[in-house]
Amino acid sequence: MSAGVKKSPLAPDAFPALPPVAGVRLAAVEAGVKYRGRDDLMLAVVGEGATVAGVLTRSATAGAPVLWCRRQLQAEHRPCALLVNAGNANTFTGEPGARHVRQTCEAVGAALGCRPEQVLAASTGVIGELLPVAPIVGAVPQLAESLAADSSAWARAAAAILTTDTFAKGATAQAAIAGQTVTVNGFAKGSGMIEPNMATMLAFLFTDAAIARPALQSILADANERSFNAISVDGDTSTSDTCLLFATGRAADAPAASADLDDFRRALQAVMTDLAVQVVRDGEGATKLITVEVCGGEDDRAAMRIAKSVANSPLVKTAIAGADANWGRIVMAVGHAGQRVDPARLKIAIGGVPVTDHGRRIDDFDEAPLNRHLGGDEILIEVDVGVASGRARVWTCDLTRGYIDINADYRS
Amino acid sequence: MSAGVKKSPLAPDAFPALPPVAGVRLAAVEAGVKYRGRDDLMLAVVGEGATVAGVLTRSATAGAPVLWCRRQLQAEHRPCALLVNAGNANTFTGEPGARHVRQTCEAVGAALGCRPEQVLAASTGVIGELLPVAPIVGAVPQLAESLAADSSAWARAAAAILTTDTFAKGATAQAAIAGQTVTVNGFAKGSGMIEPNMATMLAFLFTDAAIARPALQSILADANERSFNAISVDGDTSTSDTCLLFATGRAADAPAASADLDDFRRALQAVMTDLAVQVVRDGEGATKLITVEVCGGEDDRAAMRIAKSVANSPLVKTAIAGADANWGRIVMAVGHAGQRVDPARLKIAIGGVPVTDHGRRIDDFDEAPLNRHLGGDEILIEVDVGVASGRARVWTCDLTRGYIDINADYRS
Repeated sequence: MSAGVKKSPLAPDAFPALPPVAGVRLAAVEAGVKYRGRDDLMLAVVGEGATVAGVLTRSATAGAPVLWCRRQLQAEHRPCALLVNAGNANTFTGEPGARHVRQTCEAVGAALGCRPEQVLAASTGVIGELLPVAPIVGAVPQLAESLAADSSAWARAAAAILTTDTFAKGATAQAAIAGQTVTVNGFAKGSGMIEPNMATMLAFLFTDAAIARPALQSILADANERSFNAISVDGDTSTSDTCLLFATGRAADAPAASADLDDFRRALQAVMTDLAVQVVRDGEGATKLITVEVCGGEDDRAAMRIAKSVANSPLVKTAIAGADANWGRIVMAVGHAGQRVDPARLKIAIGGVPVTDHGRRIDDFDEAPLNRHLGGDEILIEVDVGVASGRARVWTCDLTRGYIDINADYRS
Repeated sequence: MSAGVKKSPLAPDAFPALPPVAGVRLAAVEAGVKYRGRDDLMLAVVGEGATVAGVLTRSATAGAPVLWCRRQLQAEHRPCALLVNAGNANTFTGEPGARHVRQTCEAVGAALGCRPEQVLAASTGVIGELLPVAPIVGAVPQLAESLAADSSAWARAAAAILTTDTFAKGATAQAAIAGQTVTVNGFAKGSGMIEPNMATMLAFLFTDAAIARPALQSILADANERSFNAISVDGDTSTSDTCLLFATGRAADAPAASADLDDFRRALQAVMTDLAVQVVRDGEGATKLITVEVCGGEDDRAAMRIAKSVANSPLVKTAIAGADANWGRIVMAVGHAGQRVDPARLKIAIGGVPVTDHGRRIDDFDEAPLNRHLGGDEILIEVDVGVASGRARVWTCDLTRGYIDINADYRS
């Protein structure tokens, strides 16, 4: 978090107290990769026998750490640690960039007594500049010596990975698996899908549950669809998006392979959705959190495309910024999505106030509650496209002068 | 064009002098549909034996005039006239909206002695309000009596269809068909894909060439791909986009069915591209015209998707607004397009200055010419994704505070 940057008006009151997760220890340090006077390097260590699952950016220009993580996840190595730096994305750096990821992971492996392939890595910050290896490698021993498991270690780790974020983002939940209570902690960074010279979103989740990798991967991918894949600040996709879930198994005496994981799915979804919405709350220039709920789609995927079309429409986002009940722009964005819509049954409500029905404006609806809602900082747009039963929910933020000021800055 | 609105800094010096097109007469009048003190209703009449082709918005919430045009084009009626009003889009108006289109076309048919199905219609302006029929029907006789074919009639017609445009948009070209010279005139409106409460782009083209409908349709659709379908102001799609091409056949003694139309294709492409770029030059808040040229794509369609991804990226558009050589954002947008890219061969040039090659930044390139280029008001971004030989060119404009001011206006 850059010094002197004003915290988002949508920020939560405080960073939550994250409880220890058996088997997880963390540390952060100022390595001086880019920032001064703040931590910018984070190490998380998981005990032996842990499993890991991940979802990574689909960008065709993904960064070197993303390519490294993809390889190690596919090889299904047992995870040992996670190393994250802020300020340099190590993206579009060619073969040297890949070599630098390996060198930093080798340093962690040497300090912890594991193979480099068991170390996952993530970097965000400026694109196209080589990652400075020396300060990172030099800081690893200090990180390895200062590992801790308490709440302050979690808070410090969450702060160390921030770039242009205006607040640290964390969440926690508990779940019951086969009668046993497990914990899910998570923290994330991201000031929108995009940032000036930066790219972009990271989310790390840790649980003491014992879950085999195939199940862990499917649970993560499923929860990701309704959390991080359901947010948008401006429709741009980063080259570094990384979401990793580590399961240490330290809470479980018996493997949970056969156990019912529904409550764990619920808890993980709650943590990931909480973090995803916090990322939107830190969207560049955001003054309003917008929730778009679509029903009546041909299927859930069609509903998601329509919801994304509304959430990504500059026309809709600027109208909300102006507290303008401009539902005609929502009609446009729905029609623009390229999905089946029944215009004669299209229903739109803003803040719970129906504004259209049967393909027409509802004449003389009460504008007072609508305008009160639009004056607030949490906006709800509900759309029923009247085709079938597909549903989706997307979170975004308004598009303001602040966004332009941040991104059109000559000095960026 | 609203009174007192400042003309776009990218506007051409003047509206071009459009020569007569044999068989075409036009008239405009102040019908008082929405605006006061300006023409807001335009009638164009084509002689007997004319043919017409059209491309219409793919929006699932298309306006009533679009649905009317689609039906008449499919029925392949001989065109008689075109009626266009500004200020009301007659969109999302249900069955009454469709009835109102028919009533206005019946009035034109009665005045000209043709069937209503031979009258095409277009409306842009506010969405969701019923089109006031009486002032339009009442103005039709006056329009029918004041039809003219000279340059001033063309200029007045082009001005009558404007909404929030800051200047009228026209273009003309000549072509040789079988040794005979034909003329192509066109005019368009649109202040971007979107406007405050408005929607949006119309383009009307007229030629005295004799071209049968199937050929005319394929020529128009082809030219449209590289003109109006290759521009974007903000990625939003209007509910009213309509592009019609009328061919009167009055220049030709013999039908041109067998004639070589390549020169006509060239002339039509020139007129449509000219008009399309003028629409971008009138983009809301635009201060810079941006041309994105992509080569090396898997095919032309893949190249177009990549070019659109760059052209629609708020990150890229705000960087250009800030005259910031932020090529990392172009890398992001290229990767975001979901098309095949070879990162190791990705080349990016801005203003002809190569900034990346072989998947890496070009170290110590000369920034002086680059910054001179970015300081100007016409920006060129060239991208080679290094896969195959697919090419595309897209025109867009920068994203500025002016865009936010226009679209987030409380009073819109």
